[in-house]
Order: sequence, then structure tokens, then C-alpha cells
Amino acid sequence: MTNAFLPAIEAEINRQQMGTAPSELYDPIRYLMRLGGKRIRPVLCLMSYSLFKSDWEKVVPSALSIEIFHNFTLMHDDIMDKAPLRRGKATVHEKWNDNIAILSGDVMLVNAYQYLNQCAHLNLQAYQHLLTRFNRTAAEVCEGQQMDMNFESRTEVSVEEYIEMIRLKTSVLIGLSMEMGGILAETDLATSQALYAIGEAVGLGFQLKDDLLDVYGDPAKFGKQVGGDILANKKTYLLIRAFETATGDHLAELTDWVQRPDAIPQDKIQAVTALYNKLGIREETETKINAYFEHAFRAVETLNIATEKKSALRHFMAGLVDREV
Amino acid sequence: MTNAFLPAIEAEINRQQMGTAPSELYDPIRYLMRLGGKRIRPVLCLMSYSLFKSDWEKVVPSALSIEIFHNFTLMHDDIMDKAPLRRGKATVHEKWNDNIAILSGDVMLVNAYQYLNQCAHLNLQAYQHLLTRFNRTAAEVCEGQQMDMNFESRTEVSVEEYIEMIRLKTSVLIGLSMEMGGILAETDLATSQALYAIGEAVGLGFQLKDDLLDVYGDPAKFGKQVGGDILANKKTYLLIRAFETATGDHLAELTDWVQRPDAIPQDKIQAVTALYNKLGIREETETKINAYFEHAFRAVETLNIATEKKSALRHFMAGLVDREV
Repeated sequence: MTNAFLPAIEAEINRQQMGTAPSELYDPIRYLMRLGGKRIRPVLCLMSYSLFKSDWEKVVPSALSIEIFHNFTLMHDDIMDKAPLRRGKATVHEKWNDNIAILSGDVMLVNAYQYLNQCAHLNLQAYQHLLTRFNRTAAEVCEGQQMDMNFESRTEVSVEEYIEMIRLKTSVLIGLSMEMGGILAETDLATSQALYAIGEAVGLGFQLKDDLLDVYGDPAKFGKQVGGDILANKKTYLLIRAFETATGDHLAELTDWVQRPDAIPQDKIQAVTALYNKLGIREETETKINAYFEHAFRAVETLNIATEKKSALRHFMAGLVDREV
Repeated sequence: MTNAFLPAIEAEINRQQMGTAPSELYDPIRYLMRLGGKRIRPVLCLMSYSLFKSDWEKVVPSALSIEIFHNFTLMHDDIMDKAPLRRGKATVHEKWNDNIAILSGDVMLVNAYQYLNQCAHLNLQAYQHLLTRFNRTAAEVCEGQQMDMNFESRTEVSVEEYIEMIRLKTSVLIGLSMEMGGILAETDLATSQALYAIGEAVGLGFQLKDDLLDVYGDPAKFGKQVGGDILANKKTYLLIRAFETATGDHLAELTDWVQRPDAIPQDKIQAVTALYNKLGIREETETKINAYFEHAFRAVETLNIATEKKSALRHFMAGLVDREV
């Protein structure tokens, strides 16, 4: 059944109903939604729903609302980050312009709410609870993006602050994806909250895996330039922990690479990676990632569902931790 | 009763619940919401609700959702228009920066939905209808803004296109304000649609009045620079009709003023205003405004409500057409 989720989501994206005119407003939405991606969030939502009920096809539009919301955040974040590329293609503000990317993003957010508005099987209380959770999570994602921007102009960021930032920017939405599956399946509150906690832990592990792959990914498979975060001095989990761990010559060397504006890119990537290796940052990050996923796996075990349902969910989650891209 | 609406709305704005951190995200929302304004949309919503039911206090949060949405559009439009001032104060992107204005605006839109989510008295079908209408209108407002931006780079815009643009950018939301009052009061569909039509007509007249005041407003009362639209060659109803009406020397003179980049501001304002006068543009615009309001007044008469309710609504609408600011 799990294999049917992704095609169903892609089919719904191809049917996606929005306006048509002005084309400047709606073309960018179609463009971004069809750039692909793993569709992790709606798949997790359908998977979560399927733990309790079999008629998952009827909640595909609701699941898609999270993917539309996620793509809305990408469209606006790319403006703020002045990112030229998204999934190897020109970002919307590059292909069109900033104003169009602002306004198309706004319509996407509205469109996400309209997809969410297609779950006629819930009672009013459950639907309002779903919306309250969606709204709170949406605000948190914006809070995470603002924290991320604030970090850029700061010299020091603690691991705790960094984890809180990625929790808000990434994990809460993955948590909501799982929780929404439960709410749509009309589980009790304790269960939907447990599903949220599973998704939130998965999301934290998932984001740290992103940080790790940016340094240690296989260049043949990774799709982006390996070492991009190092070049940009991005305050990732790896760099923050390296600064917290390094002493003496290691600290001086790391500080020097970060402060040298004229560094040759490949030299800098090699040197900082070598420092990470000496400081045990790779192993430490892998341990941290595994801890988040183990936490999620244990929480899955406590759910009151059949064993084979748990296996399917664990299998999908394992794919997120073992991924190479 | 009508006099109680505005204080109730202002009190709700002062209580407005949002997050607190990061402050860069939430301070701009409080700043913009408290710059003032006539609060026409939520007042119309409460007025519309009160035509049918007396317990209007309970729908103040729902009414506020429209004002929050309206302010969200102002925050994002001001970025796109590179506007330095809003209600005589620095715009959010000027006081903070573009990125903060994008992201704060996004949270405002989410916040609008959360205020809309406080009408627990509706049944699910009515609530989903309300959301569908809100979503459609929100998308239309964005369509109107995109049309407006498209017009800037075009040499010719017809009156029909202009009216459609202001209908989308301004009138549909005023229509929704009235319609929402009906939906919240659980009127039948025909009635809520009639309320929408009244609001839409009022909105068209209201926007044309804005165009008119920009040229013919009393400088002592207007608050903005009279003639600002003329200086910016803004394709308002007045300029479009002037170009459609003018012939011979008048057309040559109008074209000349519009194309002269080094014109002395006061000379240009005086000359174009004089041309408007010769061409009868002021009277024509006033006739058009009155026609929209007359249409709305007649529609009010057909509502199945008590005579004194109609009077209160007409009185408020008359204030919108007679206003000098």
C-alpha cells in the first residue's frame, strides 16, 4: 500500500486546482510544485492515516496541503536567502522576480488552506483542532526561518539554539504530517500527539542527516556540491560542535579557515573536513541522528496498532536515516 | 450599536494573540496593526451580522480576521511597491527590512486564519463554506495586485480592465466582509450572496472615491499629498478616462505631461487637473461612484430585514461615499 502513496500524491499535484490568470501568479506555483522532491511530508501523513484506516485515498488532498505549504516556505525562503537554485533548477524569484515570488507564495499558502478544507468527514471540533494545529505549526516554521536568518549575523550559536531552530524550521512540520494522519483518522488526542512526537524526532534526525550529507555525501549521488555549507560558513550542527570541541591548534586552524575570505574552495572544504574527522564530529553527528531515530522507533512500538503496520512505518523511517541524498 | 463596533475591534486588536519570539517576526505585526485605519472591513462585517442577530460581540474575532488579512496584503504590497510610508509612518520593510516584511506578512496570513477559526457556533458545512469563500477571495486579492503590477509596464489599460483590477484588489474583500457577516449569522445562501454584492459595489465606489480624492481632496484634510497619482502617472480611473476622452490639443497636452520626466511637480499637478476639469472627468467619476453606491443602496432595500436596520447600513455606506479622507 505504501508504494501507492507517492503516485497518488503526484497525481493530485498534476490535478492541482488553482486559478489561471494572471499567469504570472499561477505559473510559478505549477513550476515549483512540479520540480519534484521526495514528498516526505504527505507520504508520512498518508502512512500515519493508514495505521488506523484503510480508505487513505480520501485524505490525499488534505495530505497535499502540507506539501503545498512546504513549497510555499521554499518559495519565500529562497527569496530571503537569495538562493539561485532549487532542486537544480532556477528558483522562482530568479526565473521571474522577487515580487512575483512573494505574491505567488502568498497564493500558495491560501491554496494550502483550501486543500485542507477538503476533509468533509471530520466533525467541526476535529476540523478546528486540525486547523489550530496547522496554524500553530505554520507560525513555528516562520519562527524557525527568522531564527535561522538571525543566526547569520551572530558570531556564536549554541547547539541548543541550533536544535531549537531546526526543530521549528523543519521538524514541527514533519511532526504535523504524522499528527494530521492521526487527526484525519479520528484517533484520540494522546495518539495524535504521540504521532506528532514521532514525526518531530524523525524531522530532527532528518535535518542533521542533511547537515552530515553536505560534508560527507557521495559527490556522485548527492546532487549538490559537497562542502557547500563549509564554504558558506553555515552554522550547522557540525560546525557548531567543532567550535565547541576544538582546542589549541585545532581551534586556531578552524577559526582561520572560517575567517579567511580568499580561501581556495577545495582547500577549505578539505581542511575543514579533515578537522571534523580529527575532532570526531562525523561519529558524534551520526550518534545524534541515530538517537533521534531510535527515540522515534521506540515511540512507534508504543502505538496501539498491528505489528505489520509498525514494520511498514519503521521501514519508511529507516529509509530517511539511511538515505544518501 | 454601530458606535460600539469600532471600540470592540480596537480592543480585540490590542488583545491580539500571536507569538512573542523571535521579536523581529512579531513586532512588525503589532506595529502595522496599531497604525490605525478606518477598520471599514470588520465594521462592515459586524454591521452585516447585526442585521440578523444581536449577539455580535461573539463574532468580533472572526471579523478581525479580515482586518488582519487586509493588513497582511498592505505589508506585502508595500514591499512590492517600494512604498516608504503607510498612514504617514515608515512601512515595515523600511523600518525593518524586506525579508522581515515577507516573513511577518506570512505569519499575519496564518494569524488571520486562526482568528477565523474562532467561530465555534457554526456547523461544519457553514464553516467550510466560510473558509472556501475566504480562500477564493484571498486568491482574488492577490490576482488584483498582480494585475496592478502588470499594468505598470503597459502603455494602455482599458476602463474595463481597470475596474476588474480594483474589483479584485479591493472590492471582493469588502464584499466578503459583508458576506461573512451573513454566513456567521447563518443566513441562507441567497442572502449572503446579496450581502456580498452590496459590499462589492460599495468597494468599487470606495476605490474610485480614493482615485478622486487623490486629485480633488482638500489638502488640509487629505493626509497624503494631493496629486500623488498624477505625479506617478498612476493609471487611475481618472487618467484612463482622460486618455479615452481627450482629442486634439487636449490629448497632445496630456501625453506631453505624462511623458515629461523633468516636469515641475506642482505645474504637472495643476495642468493635468485643469485638463481633467476641461474633459469633465471629475463629474464623470462622481457619477460613476454614485452609480455604484446607488446600486448598493437599492440592493439593501431588497434585504428581508427591518427598516431601521436598513437605515443604519445606508447611513454607514453614505459615510463612505461622502468622506473627504
